[in-house]
Amino acid sequence: MTPRILTLEPITADAFAPFGDLIEQRDDNAVKMNEARFDRFVELASIDVDGTVADINVSLMRCVIVSELPYQIELLERHPRGSQIFMPVSQQPYVAVVAPPGLRPELADMRAFRVNGDQGINMRRGVWHLPMLGFAKDQRFFVVDRKGGDNCEEHHLDAPIELRGSL
Amino acid sequence: MTPRILTLEPITADAFAPFGDLIEQRDDNAVKMNEARFDRFVELASIDVDGTVADINVSLMRCVIVSELPYQIELLERHPRGSQIFMPVSQQPYVAVVAPPGLRPELADMRAFRVNGDQGINMRRGVWHLPMLGFAKDQRFFVVDRKGGDNCEEHHLDAPIELRGSL
Repeated sequence: MTPRILTLEPITADAFAPFGDLIEQRDDNAVKMNEARFDRFVELASIDVDGTVADINVSLMRCVIVSELPYQIELLERHPRGSQIFMPVSQQPYVAVVAPPGLRPELADMRAFRVNGDQGINMRRGVWHLPMLGFAKDQRFFVVDRKGGDNCEEHHLDAPIELRGSL
Repeated sequence: MTPRILTLEPITADAFAPFGDLIEQRDDNAVKMNEARFDRFVELASIDVDGTVADINVSLMRCVIVSELPYQIELLERHPRGSQIFMPVSQQPYVAVVAPPGLRPELADMRAFRVNGDQGINMRRGVWHLPMLGFAKDQRFFVVDRKGGDNCEEHHLDAPIELRGSL
């Protein structure tokens, strides 16, 4: 059976809005800080986790197995108890493959975004997504999500979807 | 009057512990994730802000005025209502100049740490610190702190302290 095809598109804040926040510098939200030594771009992501501030998990991820495009998508997951921020800290591009929240992912509504190494994403609670892929050894992300278990649902696709495009 | 001198030392988690968390990869807290494609280093920083999860501010900072060493320290500040995470996203080194919490900074207890571009810091609530300096145009940080005002106290030094060392 020929796999279904999903092609990468560039991410924009508007296109990603149904799935979460695009974390990037935008001149419309710059404020000066520290005696004008820095521009600051504020309120870029809404953290949304079950529980309190103490339930937030700050972590780093480092790629040890490198993925390549085209990539065969066989599994999506979602986190019903919290949002997830991924911020690149090694300035390397990546992909965000997402589908709207729901009991099961609607594959017809899947989108695949190419994200550059200066842009972070905040995945909204419950959004279906491809587990994060790394495209270079030691590619690294700073992550803000929720501590604790009972927060991951998986969906295995009946047939693979081929993710195409280039970074 | 000859300025007092403060010399940069390399940051370590232990040396920085009285002031906050050093956010770095440490093999003792690595766990596998996403079918072992990534190592994940978890619970690297304790966010501590007045209010709820919704009061957390996720932002980016970009350097527009470049500082140099030696640097004359004339002002310290502290944030009584929340911790502050600074995570470099442009892989460039920086400094963390800190003094223990208290009504006023005890200058005899000041420390100046050199932090590399792969390491973040989480400044504990109330810790006195030098406002962030950038040492390169467009040096950038990802920041997690508290939204809203009434959260900054400043202390102007009677005499400057000269920060020495190299990055």
